Amino acid sequence: MNTIFKALFVSSSIGFSVNAFSLEPLQTLANSLFGPLPSEMPGSEQDTPERIALGKTLYFETALSANGNQSCNTCHNLLDGGSGTELSSVSVGSLGTLGTRNSLTTWNAGFQFVQFWDGRAKNLREQASGPITNPIEMGLSSEEEAIQRLKDKGYQAAFIAAFPDADNALTFEHLTESLAAFQRTLVTEDRFDLYLAGDATALSTQEKRGLERFISTGCNACHNGPLLGGELFMKMGLVKPYPNKIDKGRAHVTGSSADNFMFKVPTLRNVAQTAPYFHDGAVFNLDQAVRDTAWHQLGVKLSEEDVKDISAFFASLDNTKTITF
Amino acid sequence: MNTIFKALFVSSSIGFSVNAFSLEPLQTLANSLFGPLPSEMPGSEQDTPERIALGKTLYFETALSANGNQSCNTCHNLLDGGSGTELSSVSVGSLGTLGTRNSLTTWNAGFQFVQFWDGRAKNLREQASGPITNPIEMGLSSEEEAIQRLKDKGYQAAFIAAFPDADNALTFEHLTESLAAFQRTLVTEDRFDLYLAGDATALSTQEKRGLERFISTGCNACHNGPLLGGELFMKMGLVKPYPNKIDKGRAHVTGSSADNFMFKVPTLRNVAQTAPYFHDGAVFNLDQAVRDTAWHQLGVKLSEEDVKDISAFFASLDNTKTITF
Repeated sequence: MNTIFKALFVSSSIGFSVNAFSLEPLQTLANSLFGPLPSEMPGSEQDTPERIALGKTLYFETALSANGNQSCNTCHNLLDGGSGTELSSVSVGSLGTLGTRNSLTTWNAGFQFVQFWDGRAKNLREQASGPITNPIEMGLSSEEEAIQRLKDKGYQAAFIAAFPDADNALTFEHLTESLAAFQRTLVTEDRFDLYLAGDATALSTQEKRGLERFISTGCNACHNGPLLGGELFMKMGLVKPYPNKIDKGRAHVTGSSADNFMFKVPTLRNVAQTAPYFHDGAVFNLDQAVRDTAWHQLGVKLSEEDVKDISAFFASLDNTKTITF
Repeated sequence: MNTIFKALFVSSSIGFSVNAFSLEPLQTLANSLFGPLPSEMPGSEQDTPERIALGKTLYFETALSANGNQSCNTCHNLLDGGSGTELSSVSVGSLGTLGTRNSLTTWNAGFQFVQFWDGRAKNLREQASGPITNPIEMGLSSEEEAIQRLKDKGYQAAFIAAFPDADNALTFEHLTESLAAFQRTLVTEDRFDLYLAGDATALSTQEKRGLERFISTGCNACHNGPLLGGELFMKMGLVKPYPNKIDKGRAHVTGSSADNFMFKVPTLRNVAQTAPYFHDGAVFNLDQAVRDTAWHQLGVKLSEEDVKDISAFFASLDNTKTITF
């Protein structure tokens, strides 16, 4: 059952019967619009401990980059929000070339309807096959080179343990599937979910005010569902044109001018940890990102108080789960 | 579990294991963005057959209008999409006064996050308490008058059967609760849900093309979830101003200029049956409503082919369930 209906089951009981949950109205509304993040990621039921462990090792494996200086974690740092450094708009590849888009967080990525800003990969496995051989990212010459490097580092046994039924365990497909399996464990935990689950004290008064303004401004048209995003493409600069017109977004994938400037709406889970912001990483400050988004996407000039309140609400989306080694 | 996750469980199985569901990609995507309408409406678990039967009788009870010429069904005609006549923008009240807004459909109303275009009622029961004593709608002088009229018509026994534990069964609160109970049975059935459930033949090629264009244009930013709407407020004329500026929508409820022209996004379930369109009922033709919405809300000039395709898709949302008497 969709979360909106779960929440309405609660709200509908107000009036005639005892409301066993005693949610405050904002909690009921937030449950109907967003809903809690599930604790398990889709597809994870097929992931064995061996496969997840292998994927985790591979996520931090620098042998997968041309100069042996980068792993997945370099541009998707799990200890720093799951995205790239907050010091540059885009990441630098293994061969020193600048990327073209702001790296997205891998936390919760597997919940999203497509991967990459332009949706060119439909799932985590497809996504994982991109960067390793992308010349401006990890820069290996071929998928074969990736497999040879893993063989040289003695990965054979770990792949056989992860894919015991396969004739040939150490393949590029199994490499990307292992990375996907590990990423399916990257589900965040935060105070907002505690609030949705019934703990009215999990958010401060200012954070609740920010949540109310977020909803009443209409931010949740695009930033909807449990991820507060990651469910659709939207035109960047819908109401007021976005100044950077170089990147046409999804149009580069579909070849259709109707898709000009269409990008995946990013999730706001963990957003305070994932500066810079926007597909081009142009904005480094969360308040500024809130201000700009309201202006470009909704034509709304938020008051400075509203900006602060909405940014404060975003702090409740900070991931409290860590990666252990 | 949210529908997006249910669907992703399916899509994630593509590639490594057999996809038992064999959904085509558009079905998987549509499941993740919208999801099927639940068969039961929130709150319906408390509705007894006696209460539903009473509510149904009351829904068609013309004694609830000043001149005895109107029932709920007059402006929310369940045999004609659940909304008012397609011959005028707004409905005429019992005393001959024109209403100010296009009457909304009662089909699926109980799934929506608020009631009325401006969200001034939070649930069906609250909604039902409005029109009976509204001078430009059913026009009774007071709630007491409504109860007296029902007493005079011999409703006492039906109310006692519906509310057997109450000291005083025939009350206005029980009247509105009965109307709500009946409306909780008003769940549509349509071909789109058959499509989502796995029947790829439930939509024609043109309807599928329309669904694709609906999504790729970004219509689903606002028209999201199982209702394709009914989940949030949005500014009418977000990108290109809406010409009729008389009705300020939600601002009339909150008193805040930030809510100027904010209206509940209407559901698109059954949309082809519920002309006219928009809060002011200004548009009578579905193609024109599609054209205008893309322009005013997304700044998109749809091609005529796209308009026809999207309208064709909307036909798959036509309710196939009828009311029996």
